[in-house]
Amino acid sequence: MQEIWSGLPDWLPLPAGKLLPAIIQDAASGMVLMLVDLNQEALELISATGRVHYYHPGRRKVVAKGEASGHFQDVMEMRLSCRGDQLILKVRPAGGACELGYQSCFFRRLGPDGWEIADPKVFDPEEVYPEIAFSH
Amino acid sequence: MQEIWSGLPDWLPLPAGKLLPAIIQDAASGMVLMLVDLNQEALELISATGRVHYYHPGRRKVVAKGEASGHFQDVMEMRLSCRGDQLILKVRPAGGACELGYQSCFFRRLGPDGWEIADPKVFDPEEVYPEIAFSH
Repeated sequence: MQEIWSGLPDWLPLPAGKLLPAIIQDAASGMVLMLVDLNQEALELISATGRVHYYHPGRRKVVAKGEASGHFQDVMEMRLSCRGDQLILKVRPAGGACELGYQSCFFRRLGPDGWEIADPKVFDPEEVYPEIAFSH
Repeated sequence: MQEIWSGLPDWLPLPAGKLLPAIIQDAASGMVLMLVDLNQEALELISATGRVHYYHPGRRKVVAKGEASGHFQDVMEMRLSCRGDQLILKVRPAGGACELGYQSCFFRRLGPDGWEIADPKVFDPEEVYPEIAFSH
């Protein structure tokens, strides 16, 4: 897959402090897994490793998806929006994307009685993220 | 589909000025079509009409997707992220989503030589949007 990245340097760098929203989508199933922000550092790390990295707003730094869980996401394809300010990363995930134990962060669906859990859990978050206190 | 919206009022209103990013995804194919922002007014119009409305940053107001093109998007399902601040709207589109003539705004794919057009045009934008001057 590395050859796809040779086109990236022409498009970089991003302006300092600029964040691009990136939709993370399962390349095989089409399931949308996450919506994250990328900065220059994240794009460079994606290009260097072929794996999803993103800017984590709570930790205020770039993290590798899967660095705690082992649920890395290999980037198979990258898409750019018509206005050039949004991305899709089509990925092959090594495990569930959501820290709450689901394949996708979008596991709640609007129903007649409000938001309901629509997807099955695919892992136990307390086993995978022992350092996080889960209050929900 | 209207019954799905009865759960929405419990979750609203959004704080004034708050924008939620919403991924617009084709419900049948799984193709990601657009990434837009919703505010309170857009959510109320979606709930009232069952069709995608969003905050248009250039025009600084809420617009109905398809109001110029006729390419409306009927909302079939709504998903909420784990942190409660991002949405997916799964839609049935009446035509291409991108004003440049493509089914999806994400018609550019990163290749060895940079961003390349990866999808076919599905309509002629100069016919559908005669009021827009296309310079690209």
